[in-house]
Amino acid sequence: MVLKSFVEVHPDSHFPIQNLPYGVFKPEPGSEPRPGVAIGDYVLDLSLIALAGLFDGPYLKNSDCFNQPNLNKFVGLGRPAWKEARTTLQKLLSDSEPTLRDNTSLRQKALLPMVKVQMLLPVAIGDYSDFFASKHHARNCGLMFRGPENAINPNWFHIPIAYHGRASSIVISGTDIIRPRGQGHPTANSLPYFGPSRKLDFELEMAAVVGPGNELGKPVDVNVSADHIFGLVLMNDWSARDIQAWEYMPLGPFLGKSFGTTISPWIVTLDALEPFAFDAPEQNPPPLPYLAEKNSKNYDISLQVSIIPAGHEDACTVTRSNLKHLYWTITQQLAHHTINGCNLRPGDLLGTGTISGPEPESYGCLLELTWNGQKALSLTGTTRTFLEDGDEVILTGCCKGDGYNVGFGECSGKIIPSPPLKHVELS
Amino acid sequence: MVLKSFVEVHPDSHFPIQNLPYGVFKPEPGSEPRPGVAIGDYVLDLSLIALAGLFDGPYLKNSDCFNQPNLNKFVGLGRPAWKEARTTLQKLLSDSEPTLRDNTSLRQKALLPMVKVQMLLPVAIGDYSDFFASKHHARNCGLMFRGPENAINPNWFHIPIAYHGRASSIVISGTDIIRPRGQGHPTANSLPYFGPSRKLDFELEMAAVVGPGNELGKPVDVNVSADHIFGLVLMNDWSARDIQAWEYMPLGPFLGKSFGTTISPWIVTLDALEPFAFDAPEQNPPPLPYLAEKNSKNYDISLQVSIIPAGHEDACTVTRSNLKHLYWTITQQLAHHTINGCNLRPGDLLGTGTISGPEPESYGCLLELTWNGQKALSLTGTTRTFLEDGDEVILTGCCKGDGYNVGFGECSGKIIPSPPLKHVELS
Ligand SMILES: [Ca+2]
Ligand SMILES: [Ca+2]
Ligand SMILES: [Mg+2]
Ligand SMILES: [Mg+2]
Ligand code: NI
Repeated sequence: MVLKSFVEVHPDSHFPIQNLPYGVFKPEPGSEPRPGVAIGDYVLDLSLIALAGLFDGPYLKNSDCFNQPNLNKFVGLGRPAWKEARTTLQKLLSDSEPTLRDNTSLRQKALLPMVKVQMLLPVAIGDYSDFFASKHHARNCGLMFRGPENAINPNWFHIPIAYHGRASSIVISGTDIIRPRGQGHPTANSLPYFGPSRKLDFELEMAAVVGPGNELGKPVDVNVSADHIFGLVLMNDWSARDIQAWEYMPLGPFLGKSFGTTISPWIVTLDALEPFAFDAPEQNPPPLPYLAEKNSKNYDISLQVSIIPAGHEDACTVTRSNLKHLYWTITQQLAHHTINGCNLRPGDLLGTGTISGPEPESYGCLLELTWNGQKALSLTGTTRTFLEDGDEVILTGCCKGDGYNVGFGECSGKIIPSPPLKHVELS
Repeated sequence: MVLKSFVEVHPDSHFPIQNLPYGVFKPEPGSEPRPGVAIGDYVLDLSLIALAGLFDGPYLKNSDCFNQPNLNKFVGLGRPAWKEARTTLQKLLSDSEPTLRDNTSLRQKALLPMVKVQMLLPVAIGDYSDFFASKHHARNCGLMFRGPENAINPNWFHIPIAYHGRASSIVISGTDIIRPRGQGHPTANSLPYFGPSRKLDFELEMAAVVGPGNELGKPVDVNVSADHIFGLVLMNDWSARDIQAWEYMPLGPFLGKSFGTTISPWIVTLDALEPFAFDAPEQNPPPLPYLAEKNSKNYDISLQVSIIPAGHEDACTVTRSNLKHLYWTITQQLAHHTINGCNLRPGDLLGTGTISGPEPESYGCLLELTWNGQKALSLTGTTRTFLEDGDEVILTGCCKGDGYNVGFGECSGKIIPSPPLKHVELS
C-alpha cells in the first residue's frame, strides 16, 4: 500500500509524502527565513517541528540545523542525518501517526498554505559551477559554430567540461530577469555593438546541491561522490548569446551568463529520487579510472520548458527533455571537480549544463531549438527566435511513480527590459 | 615634513604610517579573528581600539565593523568611513599624539609584534573573478599558442576579458600548495595523461577588494567605479598549464586554476596608493563609452617574484614587473563586470590577470619566462622550466615614496607533492 499523509495531496501534486523536498521560506514578509518541507499545497515549518522536540533521533535531537536562515548546516551534516530527517518527517506526516495530525495548535502554526509564504534561496551558495554534460547539447553547439567535422571537441569525451559561474546573481524562481546590456560582434570596421542583448536565451538545466564538502587537496572518490550530494533543483542558466559569442575566447563565458541564474525553491533529495534511478548511457571511450563508476546512474526526470509570450496568457510548451539524457553523471561531475584538490563546501551548486535530448523537440535552449535564430519557433499566436521583453519562461520537472509523483515544482522568470543607462550612471 | 609614527618603523619597511593596510589576524592560535592594521613590525588590534572608543568620528563611532571576524562590514561602508578610519589611525599612531603613545596598558595589548600573530584571509570572498588585462601577457600567450598572425584576439581590445574563478580555494600567504592531479593532452591514440601536473606555474597578479557592491541590474559607472574598490592585494593565481591546455576549450580554465589561489594578508587602500597614481596607457581603438574614463590611471607598484628552489636556501628573483603595465585599469574592469547588471558584493575579489611588462625579464609567469618550457630559467645552482615540489614562490610589491614605502609585504606559497591517490580514495 502506498504511503499516505494526513495532509490532503492531489494525485497530480509534485509534493506527496514520498517526496518531501526542502526549501527556505518566510511565513510573512517581516518574519525570519526558516527551513521547511513541501507537502501537497502546504509547507511544514521545520523550525517549529524542531522547537517542539519532534526531531528526536541521534543526529538531529540536539542540532540547531533547522533554526537557521538557510539549509547549509543541515546539508553539511551528511546522509545519516538526512535519512533520519526523512524517516522522522514521513512518520510525522503519515495518516496513521497522531502526533502532528491530532495536535491542532501545532498543525495550524507549522503547516502553512504554500501560496501564502515567500520562498527564498534554500542555501547560501559559496561557489557555483556549471557543467556541459549533455552530448546532444555539445554536438548541437559544435555543429552550429564549428561544423560537422569537429562538432564535439576531443576533450569532451574524457572530461566533464565545466566553468565557474557567478554565485552572487543566482536568484529564486519568480524573480524578474533584467535584460543585460553588453557588447556584441562588431560588423565590418565599426566598433562592437553595445546595448541590450539581442539574443537572450534560457538553458534548461538541473543543479546538484553539495552536502558535506571536502578539504582542499583531498579529492572525492567517484564511488562515494553521491554522499556529497544532498539533492537536485531545476535551474535556468539564462544566457545572452550575442554577448557570450563575442566575449568567450579564450577564457569562456562571463557576462553572457552572470546577469542572472534562476533555481527552483525546493531541493528534491537523492533519497526521494532513488526509485527513479536510471542506467547512465555507456561511455565510449571508457572514462579514466578516477571517473569510472561501479554503478553509473542518472535519474528519469521528465523536464519541460514553457513560455508565456509577452501579452499572452497561455503557456506554450517549447521543449520536453529528461535528465536521463546526460552523458556525464552528477557523481562523475562532482568527482572530477575535486580531482585537482579543489574544495567544495556545503551549499555549493553544480549545474548539469543544458539538458538536450536526441530529438529536435527535446533541445534545451532556444539557440538549439531555433538553430541560432534561423528557424523561428511557433508559439500560440506568435513566434520567437530569442526571448522578448515580457516573456515568462517556466521550467518544470517531475518523476512519475506508481500512484504518485516526485516533482520539482516550477522554476520561472520573466524578462524585463534593460533600464535606461542614464539612471544607472547616476546611481 | 614627513608624517612619523611613535612606533619605530625601519626606513625599508613596507608599513609606515603612510600605508596602514588592513588585515585580519589571531593574536594567538585559540583567539578570535579580528581586524588590524600593520605599522612597522607591529599589528594594531582594531577591535581593541574600537572598544576603547577611539574611533570617534560620525561613521565609525557606533559601528561594530571592527568587532568582526573579517573586513566585509568595514569595506562595505564606503569611502567616507574609510577616510575617517585612516585619519583617526594616522593621528592615533603619529609621534605627536599622546592618546595611544602614552597609554602603556592599551599600547601593550593592542600593538602586537607581527611575527607573533597569525594572519588570515582579510575578507570572506563571495565571488572571485580574474581578468586578463596585461597586453604583454595576452600577446605572449597568443604568440605561443596561435602564432604571430592572431596573437591577440580581436575582442581583447574592446573587452576587459575575464573568467569566474573559484572562491573556496583562495588561501592566505604562507599556505602550502598541493600539486594538483589532472588530465593532460593524450598522445597519439592513447588515453589522456593522468597524474600530478607536470607544468605547475605561478601567475604574478594583483587583485582589487570590492567595497560597497551594486544591486543586481544596476551597473556601476566607470567614473565612480573607484568608490567601489577598497584596496589591493598581491595574488598568485597558481596554474597547472597541462591541465589548463587540455580542458579550456570551449568554456575556459577550470581545474587548471581552482586548486589554489594565494593572496597577501594586507589590503593596501587606494587612499594610501593615491600618491603613486600613474597615467594608464593610451587605448587604441578607443574603448566604448561605458569604459571611457575621464581620468584613466594605474598605480606605479614595483612587483617582483622570487623562487627559493627546493633544497636551497636563497631566493632568486625571476621577474620584475609593475602594475602600471596594465592596459585595462581596475576601474574599467569593475565597470565592465557590472555592465550586464551583475551584482558585486563587499569582499569580492577582482584579479588583474598576469602582470607582464614589455621586456622578457618582466614576464609574469613561467609559461612566458621559459616560453612554455622551451628555455629553462637559471636560478642559483639550478634551473627550472616549471615548478618542482618543494619550490617556494614569493611575490612582493612596493611603491617608493619620498622617504617612505607603501608596500604589500609578501605573498608566498610552497609546492608540496600530490598525496597518494589511494589515501584520497579512502577519505
Ligand atoms: Ca549552462
Ligand atoms: Ca590569472
Ligand atoms: Mg546564468
Ligand atoms: Mg588559482
Ligand atoms: Ni564563486
